Amino acid sequence: MSTPASLPSRTGSRPGGRSARIRAAVHRAVGELLAEQGGEPLTIPVVAAHAGVHATTVYRRWGSVGELFTDVATSRFSGDIVVPDTGSLRGDLERYASDLARDLTDPDTLPLVRATIGAAGEQGASACTAERQQQLRAMLERDQARGHHTPTVEHATDALLAPLYYRAVFTDQPLTPDWTRTLVTHLLPD
Amino acid sequence: MSTPASLPSRTGSRPGGRSARIRAAVHRAVGELLAEQGGEPLTIPVVAAHAGVHATTVYRRWGSVGELFTDVATSRFSGDIVVPDTGSLRGDLERYASDLARDLTDPDTLPLVRATIGAAGEQGASACTAERQQQLRAMLERDQARGHHTPTVEHATDALLAPLYYRAVFTDQPLTPDWTRTLVTHLLPD
Repeated sequence: MSTPASLPSRTGSRPGGRSARIRAAVHRAVGELLAEQGGEPLTIPVVAAHAGVHATTVYRRWGSVGELFTDVATSRFSGDIVVPDTGSLRGDLERYASDLARDLTDPDTLPLVRATIGAAGEQGASACTAERQQQLRAMLERDQARGHHTPTVEHATDALLAPLYYRAVFTDQPLTPDWTRTLVTHLLPD
Repeated sequence: MSTPASLPSRTGSRPGGRSARIRAAVHRAVGELLAEQGGEPLTIPVVAAHAGVHATTVYRRWGSVGELFTDVATSRFSGDIVVPDTGSLRGDLERYASDLARDLTDPDTLPLVRATIGAAGEQGASACTAERQQQLRAMLERDQARGHHTPTVEHATDALLAPLYYRAVFTDQPLTPDWTRTLVTHLLPD
């Protein structure tokens, strides 16, 4: 990315620091504007103005609102939840479902998930859930490596990820600890 | 609603026909524009121009893009699927899951669901699924009235509606007949 002299520099910035600062300012602007919840969709000029950068900078870097939200979602939903290792699949899934429920209940999360789905379709939706799918697979494969009869990734997705995201995105029902435990019980009946 | 003389009238229109024509034109414009899938979010001026009506008419009637999409979704997702009556809960749910999968696979459906979630949050999401919840409840209550041991609405929502919407909205995986039958089998194991 180029570094036009017209934009302010800060003392102490590393090489590449300006680009990182713009990225941080734009990401922060998206979060703050989404939290304000207007009735109208966010546009790049609005985000740019809120972030204090030129709209052309944002267009050049992200191309469209959909790509911008996808980038924000990818960064927001990567590394925020770790795969638990409790020694049993049931324990892992209960902990993971509970962590994911808490993450989805965070007031910043849902506006970003919904806006990203709205602006970037399947690519945006998958930016919100790609790491969840990988983490679920990791827990299942570890259990399988122990020689257990493990549910498939498809079944676990349908029984855990799907209801967590459906309830969060489509309903006003709370994602309670009792309910998340029930999801695991339905997947692993014993 | 007022009827400014500046807008075209058509021969043969009933009283109230103009209002209905505007509604139909704006709803159609939303569908067509969403199907075109730009990278930028739809705005009311864009929808109004495509529909051939004044933006102020659209603002006066719907208030915001979120309310407009919610209205389109409510109308699109009401009465389009009927509750089957096959004589058994398993038969009903298999038929219903298959009908819903087909509806969600319609190329017009997903852009509308995603855009409505994006622009109208929980209210919009619930406009897409409210009738589904009622229909699911109706099938379960009929089964219960036959004296059977019926799953709860919550369990059936988690096991059927959630994976159908999750797979459609969040992934690129197909909603195949085999898969929808598997969902019912997981809910009703016998």
